[in-house]
Amino acid sequence: MCVFCKIINNEIPSYTIYEDEYVKCFLDISQATKGHTLIVPKKHLQDVFALEEPFTSAVLNAAVKVSNLLKEKLGVTNINLLNNSGSLAGQTVMHFHLHVLPRYGNDEIDFHQVEHEPDFAKLDELYKKISS
Amino acid sequence: MCVFCKIINNEIPSYTIYEDEYVKCFLDISQATKGHTLIVPKKHLQDVFALEEPFTSAVLNAAVKVSNLLKEKLGVTNINLLNNSGSLAGQTVMHFHLHVLPRYGNDEIDFHQVEHEPDFAKLDELYKKISS
Repeated sequence: MCVFCKIINNEIPSYTIYEDEYVKCFLDISQATKGHTLIVPKKHLQDVFALEEPFTSAVLNAAVKVSNLLKEKLGVTNINLLNNSGSLAGQTVMHFHLHVLPRYGNDEIDFHQVEHEPDFAKLDELYKKISS
Repeated sequence: MCVFCKIINNEIPSYTIYEDEYVKCFLDISQATKGHTLIVPKKHLQDVFALEEPFTSAVLNAAVKVSNLLKEKLGVTNINLLNNSGSLAGQTVMHFHLHVLPRYGNDEIDFHQVEHEPDFAKLDELYKKISS
């Protein structure tokens, strides 16, 4: 059985800071930054491709609640929300989860992305392929 | 007026691949990876702290739809969802947006996070502070 299902069923203890009918939100024990929290739907849905209602709505609504709780209690004003879906995207536990990552400047996170100049010929081609 | 509000009002053209009453989803013209899409609520809400219903639910539901569209049309099976809220988190356009980032291995994205061993004394203290 998956580790997040065990946490949801309270078979493994967790630092749960918000919970409702559809999601459980608990501190990530590895704390990439102070306040790092996971938002986890209470149904075993693998990734973004499999996410379904009412869990989809509940996940982002919980992320908003947790973000404002971290703002109130810890003074957090900068946050990244991150979901890894698929091993090539960094997913290690195969139960959908959204990371709430407070950012403080000079922390240990670096979301490296290369900035590209727009290539409108490629964009046209891609748009046609997706819209077909 | 904000660039995303202009795109929503069709004052600036966009490669819109999904749209409903509450969100507009269009290709990011800088394409960090092929299929890189932005999910944008049709109300000017600054960041995760300000996100409100019905836009909150609509954003993640649209991300699920777009992810499955990219799977169907481009064969994408790995995705990161990313929101930057606040300048220290990398936000540059001050209108909430969720990045849908297809991942292919050997691409130009690296979400660097340092793994920490659990520090239960610190976790206890943090949990008490947040739950107080």
